[in-house]
Amino acid sequence: LPKSSEDRLLSWLRQQIAKEWGEESLLGDDAALLPTRSFAVTVDSQIAGVHFPADLPETVLARRLLAVNLSDLAATGAQPAYGFLALAATAGFDHRRFFKAFLTACRSFGVRLAGGDLARHPQATTASLTLLGTRPSGGRFLRRSQARAGDGLWLSGTVGESAAGRFVIASGARFDGRKVTLPARLDVPALRAAARQAVLRHLLPEPHLALGRWLGRQPRAAAIDLSDGLALDLSRLATESGVGALVTTPELPFSDRFRELCAAIDRDPEALALGGGEDYVLLFTLPAGRRPPRPFHCTEIGTITSDRRLRQVGAGEVGRTEDLPILGWDHLTGK
Amino acid sequence: LPKSSEDRLLSWLRQQIAKEWGEESLLGDDAALLPTRSFAVTVDSQIAGVHFPADLPETVLARRLLAVNLSDLAATGAQPAYGFLALAATAGFDHRRFFKAFLTACRSFGVRLAGGDLARHPQATTASLTLLGTRPSGGRFLRRSQARAGDGLWLSGTVGESAAGRFVIASGARFDGRKVTLPARLDVPALRAAARQAVLRHLLPEPHLALGRWLGRQPRAAAIDLSDGLALDLSRLATESGVGALVTTPELPFSDRFRELCAAIDRDPEALALGGGEDYVLLFTLPAGRRPPRPFHCTEIGTITSDRRLRQVGAGEVGRTEDLPILGWDHLTGK
Repeated sequence: LPKSSEDRLLSWLRQQIAKEWGEESLLGDDAALLPTRSFAVTVDSQIAGVHFPADLPETVLARRLLAVNLSDLAATGAQPAYGFLALAATAGFDHRRFFKAFLTACRSFGVRLAGGDLARHPQATTASLTLLGTRPSGGRFLRRSQARAGDGLWLSGTVGESAAGRFVIASGARFDGRKVTLPARLDVPALRAAARQAVLRHLLPEPHLALGRWLGRQPRAAAIDLSDGLALDLSRLATESGVGALVTTPELPFSDRFRELCAAIDRDPEALALGGGEDYVLLFTLPAGRRPPRPFHCTEIGTITSDRRLRQVGAGEVGRTEDLPILGWDHLTGK
Repeated sequence: LPKSSEDRLLSWLRQQIAKEWGEESLLGDDAALLPTRSFAVTVDSQIAGVHFPADLPETVLARRLLAVNLSDLAATGAQPAYGFLALAATAGFDHRRFFKAFLTACRSFGVRLAGGDLARHPQATTASLTLLGTRPSGGRFLRRSQARAGDGLWLSGTVGESAAGRFVIASGARFDGRKVTLPARLDVPALRAAARQAVLRHLLPEPHLALGRWLGRQPRAAAIDLSDGLALDLSRLATESGVGALVTTPELPFSDRFRELCAAIDRDPEALALGGGEDYVLLFTLPAGRRPPRPFHCTEIGTITSDRRLRQVGAGEVGRTEDLPILGWDHLTGK
């Protein structure tokens, strides 16, 4: 199965921990599930110039930071509880503006800000958020390792749109916290709505917490949040479960006019969907025949297999399959 | 009582939380003490060029990051348990070297690395560590708010040496993980040992965890770790407890040849002790007459007062007191 250089480092790290502690590593899911206490813990960072444009309003950064972290809790089926923020901002950063938006967003998701660390950063505003979530009563935590051959493979939303939004921003679009302004080339009737939506999808993803909790009440489910592209994150889920997967859907779930938008920004839609990253939808498995309630808008895209390979149904001959292209976001190389 | 711009922002933030949540803020101690579960949680960052020299070996950064965070757990009397690391490193950073040293250090303190986030940073390696500590059986968590008029005021080590070490490094000293090399001016018999020791004290502080746990077994104790200078951190402890303090010791606890070293680097020893920061010793209070066991090497430096002022016994006339100079490290302005 394909691995990014980050994954290779993590494999090494887990081996070191196994050697060092003589016990199973706690690493390997979207949030750590701590033994003896029912807490799921996750940490994620947002760095100016890497994860968001340096001129992004503080209010949007605040909401994005929280949403991206909450998506990790969603993937473990946890109920958000406490937040710890390490914020290192450059000169001119409006802390109060940031915190007002951050507290409002925290409140709407049931997160209490319980601590943190403030520093100045000489070059690039860097924010790390640690979230603690609790196990909902009557539910269990979700793991990446619970997929079994024959399970259905599902996505809880469209893929590739966030990555398209990143390229729309790179081509000059801006979001001031209220409205998106587009470069003239994209500010045309056929593309305007899709381009604006892609920018918002990229900057302000919606964590699928309710779905995560629903999955935690099913007899068995595996889940991962899509942060680094479908191919890489599916590979992670398959690795943890010791299985493979066959993508059977002729087309992945795309947002409205996604192909037209991709053509306008000169990107391949399949490549963005498989490797663009930052979709922040859940990729999950359920035993065959089970399906999530309709309001979650999930799409079944394939099946779990026993052969430890990632395959997709080919475009040509009926019944023919091919390897899933190895694409994905590598956090260490930034590619 | 004096406040840094960081403290003013935190006061505002705590008011916002009180308004927003209609309940007491969890902010205000070195680590958050979470209700209903016995966890203390702390987060701290280390940024290249701000908290450590950009050419510091990965092994030393790893040990420093952990030690600085553990000092916060020490100030709450917690037993270290789990760590979550957000590491954003620049190109060329040796992750494996870092993690080997980090895991070794974690092991020696009973910390399990349980999760984290890896990213590249375009300009400055930035690491944030979140630690969860448990309440030791038979002990309680320490708060900043438990000081009462008449209590003794104590320090668990010398002050100012770490700040002196920072200036020794700025003047050209380097630590390669094994030995300290000094600029010629300081590499002389009268200063060599003190200068080397100051560099090590700055880069590799020792968290006073055993003392913190001992304090947690006393009937009443207040504690804070000295990260931003005695004056500012004493002000924080006094503010949280609604008290003042009188420093009665004619000289604060200084390391060997500290005055000579300060003269050589052209710094005022009292100013470094009161405002240099990063001492990572505990400042704590105990009811009058109580004293920590000798092996902890603590020094009683004054008394808690009811008048909400920070004063020290003057150098001149007997019985005369003066205001403690308002000095300290401000994380938002970096001064």
